[in-house]
Amino acid sequence: MYERVFELIAERKFSVLREELKDMMAVDLAEIIDELDKKDGIIVFRLLPKDLATDVFSFLSSHLQKDIVEAIHETKLNEIIEELFFDDMIDFLEEMPSNVVKKILRNVTEEERKLINQFLNYPENSAGSLMTIEYVDLKKEMTVKDALVHIKKTGVDKETIYTCYVINDKRKLEGIVSLRKLVLYDEKLLISDIMNQDIVSVSTLDDQEEVASLFKKYDLITIPVVDTENRLVGIITIDDIVDVIDRENTEDFQKMAAMSPNEEEYLRTGVFALARKRILWLMILMIAATLTGTVITRFENILQSFVVLAAAMPLLMNTAGNAGSQSSTLIIRGIALGEVELTDYLKVLWKELRVSVVVGFTLALANMLRMLILVRSDVTIAFIVSFTLGVTVVMAKAVGGTLPIVAKKLNLDPAIMAGPLITTIVDALALVVYFNVASVLLGL
Amino acid sequence: MYERVFELIAERKFSVLREELKDMMAVDLAEIIDELDKKDGIIVFRLLPKDLATDVFSFLSSHLQKDIVEAIHETKLNEIIEELFFDDMIDFLEEMPSNVVKKILRNVTEEERKLINQFLNYPENSAGSLMTIEYVDLKKEMTVKDALVHIKKTGVDKETIYTCYVINDKRKLEGIVSLRKLVLYDEKLLISDIMNQDIVSVSTLDDQEEVASLFKKYDLITIPVVDTENRLVGIITIDDIVDVIDRENTEDFQKMAAMSPNEEEYLRTGVFALARKRILWLMILMIAATLTGTVITRFENILQSFVVLAAAMPLLMNTAGNAGSQSSTLIIRGIALGEVELTDYLKVLWKELRVSVVVGFTLALANMLRMLILVRSDVTIAFIVSFTLGVTVVMAKAVGGTLPIVAKKLNLDPAIMAGPLITTIVDALALVVYFNVASVLLGL
Repeated sequence: MYERVFELIAERKFSVLREELKDMMAVDLAEIIDELDKKDGIIVFRLLPKDLATDVFSFLSSHLQKDIVEAIHETKLNEIIEELFFDDMIDFLEEMPSNVVKKILRNVTEEERKLINQFLNYPENSAGSLMTIEYVDLKKEMTVKDALVHIKKTGVDKETIYTCYVINDKRKLEGIVSLRKLVLYDEKLLISDIMNQDIVSVSTLDDQEEVASLFKKYDLITIPVVDTENRLVGIITIDDIVDVIDRENTEDFQKMAAMSPNEEEYLRTGVFALARKRILWLMILMIAATLTGTVITRFENILQSFVVLAAAMPLLMNTAGNAGSQSSTLIIRGIALGEVELTDYLKVLWKELRVSVVVGFTLALANMLRMLILVRSDVTIAFIVSFTLGVTVVMAKAVGGTLPIVAKKLNLDPAIMAGPLITTIVDALALVVYFNVASVLLGL
Repeated sequence: MYERVFELIAERKFSVLREELKDMMAVDLAEIIDELDKKDGIIVFRLLPKDLATDVFSFLSSHLQKDIVEAIHETKLNEIIEELFFDDMIDFLEEMPSNVVKKILRNVTEEERKLINQFLNYPENSAGSLMTIEYVDLKKEMTVKDALVHIKKTGVDKETIYTCYVINDKRKLEGIVSLRKLVLYDEKLLISDIMNQDIVSVSTLDDQEEVASLFKKYDLITIPVVDTENRLVGIITIDDIVDVIDRENTEDFQKMAAMSPNEEEYLRTGVFALARKRILWLMILMIAATLTGTVITRFENILQSFVVLAAAMPLLMNTAGNAGSQSSTLIIRGIALGEVELTDYLKVLWKELRVSVVVGFTLALANMLRMLILVRSDVTIAFIVSFTLGVTVVMAKAVGGTLPIVAKKLNLDPAIMAGPLITTIVDALALVVYFNVASVLLGL
């Protein structure tokens, strides 16, 4: 499909191309335009019929939208902007430089301009920034038949018609009716009789993560957004929530690998921007690691006498770090998915303790056998290393299981208590145990 | 709300309780039953009217479903099972012990039994295991009006009526019509004129991760599942896909923290089961870490002469590990979301190289200043450590940026090339550089 388009452009067969483009799907066209160089991309975009162009435009990444805005005529641009769903338009305007925003705001009515400005002011990641105003509203005095007629008349511009919102004259939300009910129920019934009054709603300033967890809990496909007086101001649809879930997960992955979160796609982010996101945490962790260095310096004399002890340091530090990361990752994820609550703290600690004893003992035994049989180490040295290993795993899991919960209690993001920080902390602990055990058993 | 239920149970006011329960939402009721002890949970369940009981049942975790199956009368059980959506029933049967499954299969028709067995045989995580058979099918000869009448007659048992499937006499999928179109368009139009023939579909054996990425790409709320001859066998709805996205992310988090994935909730998994999931990778990584130990042993004489060098080992190993994890995490996530393709390999490596030079130089400089000003180290030692640090960061990022892509090329899961394994590999590299630089500069 891609090849065919490239071919037609190369051969300058634009009328054939125009015919073939109009039967393609918008997402696929957006991908093709993304692959083409800027000039050809704009040619393809110009060949699209208006409705399709609008759909394709909403799927393009913001740098391509900007290229197109600069290249096409203001009249055509305004046609496209007008046809965009309201939430897509806001997403687009948020990414555009201010001269483009001004150019577009010039062409809308005073009322629309106010609304757009209000939406542009919702904080990033809030429910307000995700919502659309294109929903179907009904009155409770309507019959099912009236409602269907109303939907037929007004529904074509709505982002979804599958959930309809029953509001009063003051726009207060009184109930919800699914299109499913409207189609299946008797058309003489009143909306007030069939509407659902147990409404799950969010407010404009709620965080997108909370909104996503409501969608998951109640298997929703839309959710109403209300203001402090329970007036309906917009709705959020599931397709935007799926993106939120992906973005929130990406953020957690980045934080857990000691990076400041980056919302841009990797290949589109500049080198210095990427470097900046990484240096801060590396620096903090580097300084924290000097603590472990201090432990070594304190026990320098032991190391001087038994330099053989140094060889096991990586094994102890690595295993401690990994065991701790396992626990912290499980807890962080459990908290993120709402499976682990703060009140479960003691249950978690008790479980991690038991798991760590099993894991620690198994690893210590395996290492003892390895050192005695494969490496043919001295028995005392093998015992010191293996004993420390077992103790360290238990400590590491206790630390890894505790710190994310402490972070959550302090209203910090539990994700920062992931592998990297845990590793640094338990590294130091592991060496303290190691050298103390060694100095006792080696009689230093 | 919870307190109220607990109170009414404690006071044995069951008729009041029955009245209050029937106005609550199924998800919330399932949560309350989960909080109660087994006996009270069953009491609450028994008080629910049939339809609500069915909904609540589908939200309960499988161990509670089992308790209820054992406690309630077979007639009531069969009523509930019959009312369950087909995919919820399959999910439930998959988790039940075989005697329960047999008991239930005894009460269904021969045809249903065959179908259930077929569904129970779809591999876990396949499209087949997610789908339901309760969809609306239409014929292309119908008018919009016929279609709406057909939906009104058959729709009440369907999991969704928002997307309808146009099939021929051999059940081949010919098109898709949304309820949106049926409601908005003129009722005299033919289905064949308004149906969409650009169908995005999956086959029963496709992996759930691929299915989820189609939902994301095309903003779908349902997808049809077809067999090899393009016959419609079922549909998958977005609510199940949201769960898939969460599960797949959890799996990635677990793999990236060196654990075998666990599908159960943390607090419900036994100690030995949890320990088993963790020991394998800890063991592999522990053995890999002995490699780093070997490096130390090889350079024992340097360490013996300059034991001060040992103090910087944690700093070098930690920073290397963290820098490598950052890169590998970004790449693994980019691959998972489809943002980084295999063909981007050279672009990725080139970008990581430039980022790592910026990061490595900054950290080396910061460390040099720290050692000279704060620790007042020897200049040569400070230079050896800082130089190694800079080189190590570049190497670590190259390794971290490369290995996930190599894994992907070899058809392995890129997620195993995360922090823990990368750390072990770059630890050894860091020490090799360190001791070599030291032996040259210290003239050993």
